[in-house]
Amino acid sequence: MSKKAKTAITPTREENFPEWYQQVIKAADMAENAPVRGCMTIKPYGYAVWENMQRIFDDRIKELGVQNAYFPLLIPLEFISREAEHVEGFAKECAVVTHHRLEAGPDGKLQPAKSAKLEEPYVIRPTSETIIGDAMARWIQSYRDLPMKLNQWCNVMRWEMRPRIFLRTSEFLWQEGHNAFENEEQARDDTHKMLNAYAEFAENSLAIPVIRGEKTADERFPGAVMTLTIEAMMQDGKALQAGTSHYLGQNFAKSCEIKFQSREGVEEYAHTTSWGISTRLIGALIMSHADDDGMIMPPRIAPHQVGIIPIIRNDADTDEIMSYIDDLVAKLKAQGIRVNIDDSEGRTGDKMWGMIKQGVPLRVEIGGREVDEGTLTHTRRDLGRDSKASCSVDEFAGSVQGILDAIHDELYRRAQTLRDENIKDVSGLGELEALFKDNFAGFARMDVALIEGADYERITKQHSLTSRCMPLDAPDKVIVGKAY
Amino acid sequence: MSKKAKTAITPTREENFPEWYQQVIKAADMAENAPVRGCMTIKPYGYAVWENMQRIFDDRIKELGVQNAYFPLLIPLEFISREAEHVEGFAKECAVVTHHRLEAGPDGKLQPAKSAKLEEPYVIRPTSETIIGDAMARWIQSYRDLPMKLNQWCNVMRWEMRPRIFLRTSEFLWQEGHNAFENEEQARDDTHKMLNAYAEFAENSLAIPVIRGEKTADERFPGAVMTLTIEAMMQDGKALQAGTSHYLGQNFAKSCEIKFQSREGVEEYAHTTSWGISTRLIGALIMSHADDDGMIMPPRIAPHQVGIIPIIRNDADTDEIMSYIDDLVAKLKAQGIRVNIDDSEGRTGDKMWGMIKQGVPLRVEIGGREVDEGTLTHTRRDLGRDSKASCSVDEFAGSVQGILDAIHDELYRRAQTLRDENIKDVSGLGELEALFKDNFAGFARMDVALIEGADYERITKQHSLTSRCMPLDAPDKVIVGKAY
Repeated sequence: MSKKAKTAITPTREENFPEWYQQVIKAADMAENAPVRGCMTIKPYGYAVWENMQRIFDDRIKELGVQNAYFPLLIPLEFISREAEHVEGFAKECAVVTHHRLEAGPDGKLQPAKSAKLEEPYVIRPTSETIIGDAMARWIQSYRDLPMKLNQWCNVMRWEMRPRIFLRTSEFLWQEGHNAFENEEQARDDTHKMLNAYAEFAENSLAIPVIRGEKTADERFPGAVMTLTIEAMMQDGKALQAGTSHYLGQNFAKSCEIKFQSREGVEEYAHTTSWGISTRLIGALIMSHADDDGMIMPPRIAPHQVGIIPIIRNDADTDEIMSYIDDLVAKLKAQGIRVNIDDSEGRTGDKMWGMIKQGVPLRVEIGGREVDEGTLTHTRRDLGRDSKASCSVDEFAGSVQGILDAIHDELYRRAQTLRDENIKDVSGLGELEALFKDNFAGFARMDVALIEGADYERITKQHSLTSRCMPLDAPDKVIVGKAY
Repeated sequence: MSKKAKTAITPTREENFPEWYQQVIKAADMAENAPVRGCMTIKPYGYAVWENMQRIFDDRIKELGVQNAYFPLLIPLEFISREAEHVEGFAKECAVVTHHRLEAGPDGKLQPAKSAKLEEPYVIRPTSETIIGDAMARWIQSYRDLPMKLNQWCNVMRWEMRPRIFLRTSEFLWQEGHNAFENEEQARDDTHKMLNAYAEFAENSLAIPVIRGEKTADERFPGAVMTLTIEAMMQDGKALQAGTSHYLGQNFAKSCEIKFQSREGVEEYAHTTSWGISTRLIGALIMSHADDDGMIMPPRIAPHQVGIIPIIRNDADTDEIMSYIDDLVAKLKAQGIRVNIDDSEGRTGDKMWGMIKQGVPLRVEIGGREVDEGTLTHTRRDLGRDSKASCSVDEFAGSVQGILDAIHDELYRRAQTLRDENIKDVSGLGELEALFKDNFAGFARMDVALIEGADYERITKQHSLTSRCMPLDAPDKVIVGKAY
């Protein structure tokens, strides 16, 4: 017989990390593969995480003077061709619309109608620099129109041959911000400002510690002069690029004709930036925090921050227990706490495991004894049964926000510890190669000068490594690792 | 010389209603035609209206137990073919994706890559009954899984040959709700419940009075058993269908195999509904409330409820006036009022006309005299300069919510009066024909039995009329009119 404790998720992280990831998503009921090649369906519990992310980050960008708008899904081929590197980067993965009508074919099955072939096909946006640049060219006339800061929350499409839910799907949801400025200094400064907004969001809302860095030339966004990134380490030691902020120089301004009358009365090209985060952050959440029993939701984006399980041993108690719970819920909701009561027909044990697998940060059980005593029993998802404790309803209502904050801090601390323990300094390429030959699961940090030359290319290719970033606080270094 | 008062919008409603509509959108900076056939770009001020609509209605549907989720943009042809009427209704206007990569053609220009032709093309969703039905078939096993109420906020595409901003565009934004129930009674009941949610939203948030009715068989959603609608009258007397709620019977449940184990242990098909509102509501807002000086925003969805114009006659006053305004803004924001200060470089008159054209419900002017007196001057957009009044800052802060409510009520009253004055009862088809021959701009109401037969078809065709609905409070009648 195995000595292992039984876990709710099979396999465990150690046994098979990629399969564990899929099973956590399934057990938490967050998403599934769609019947459309490479696409996912985001189920209500997963979508609620995205809604919470949107709400928090949308408030933040509005504070930073960004305005939301909406640009077309379809992009004319001519637009996407304008910027040479950009088209090179995206042409290989574009979904192409060629017809605008269906008709019955000779076999009676539907097919694209021959008479409805588009003269000029469109691509479904893989990103919107070109079409937003085209609008900015019309909307910006003078320095008085600058800075212009636009954002859209939308779907985009990049055809994926090897999809993975949340991490790499042909269609995904994101926000894409597009800002325009008078000069390079303002634009570069804003590129850093948006990266900081991402880093603070990852750390303060998602409990994911990130390295703020600049991408090396090879890893830049197609068409960018500078790409900044936040890189997180997943529990298997791999990197996940969690958000990027690009300084595009005047490349798109020139290809889209974004010109303005300067303060000196001279016509100049604007300096533009773009910045985005996507539903892959949900994948980052899972691989940062979940354990072998399932998801652990960081409290600030958890769909349910507190989950309540009524323990009803005989029907006569039902009304009393439920009204006791209603009082508690009112106290929690008055504080803005998101509460879920599982009053379904199931067994208490199943409900408890359901909440564990969904990663509800704080579970509360209330039965007849608790009602008699005026108490409740609560358990932290991150600490498990050892954290089970009883207290009065008022005491709980008074401390619940503090407990949620403590859970956030604990998740952050764990992720940071794991990451810091798995960053190794290496002094040369020999050491780098030896490290990953030995199946090292983590990041190597070394002098950035070492990435020049064929040897680095050979080693990274052989071990599926990439340059993740040059940390902003140590720009002469580079972080190297495997990545999602 | 013309005796007409000069208006901010040219032409006026009377001169050319369709062109007036376009000019109001342009003057308010809400949207523009996109460089993609039939599509629009929603500019920040227009998108802010949509965001406010979303926030209000999303809260409402969550109260009704609906969960948001996200389903794929692309729909396999095989799915859309499953329901015969449905495919008939939508096949003619589908954008079809046939390739997943671009390549350079012989002329160096990009073209769909021949080697990346999809075996089975996809359509961009015109609506998602079929793909959501496919998911429900997997997610629903037992009566315990019912009712299931799902919604998504997303973009959809229906190829338009004669597009008009907000009213008819190839791509538009909407919410589509899809609910499943155990039996017909529950499903029909819910179809009415969602229609009522729309009607209340239109009346209480958008200040648009609506007729709640059922569509005649000809006008039903493709695949529906019953389509309920809310119909509004625009200022030119035309109808605008502002929201629909469909009872789909078991049609989609059968074509998608949405089966469940009933309470009696028998396998049954679910009864499903779908319901949607879209960005065309912004068009309805404009045509309901705007006047010859531009937009008038109903206060509850206005991006800026109060617009403040500092009147600075000499630079020395600037700090004093701006700090006075900051105090006012703090008092308004504390009440949740959305405030905009126009502290740009322009002239006071231009700023005032800017706010008029954007339809800011309540304008406030503050200059040196107001600061000295501790007062402010305010003007209602709906009543114009006659409503200009002064009061103390505290008095204003105490009454602003009441003034905004009064503006809402006034806009609603005007729209209702206009509508009620332009509904004519007709007793036969001869009278109907005579009415519209005489260029009647409004709705005719008559016995529903009159729509059977060739005469009705001839008259409606000749005068571009349609049966709008059979009012729920007078189901033996039908409303007939021109429509958007």
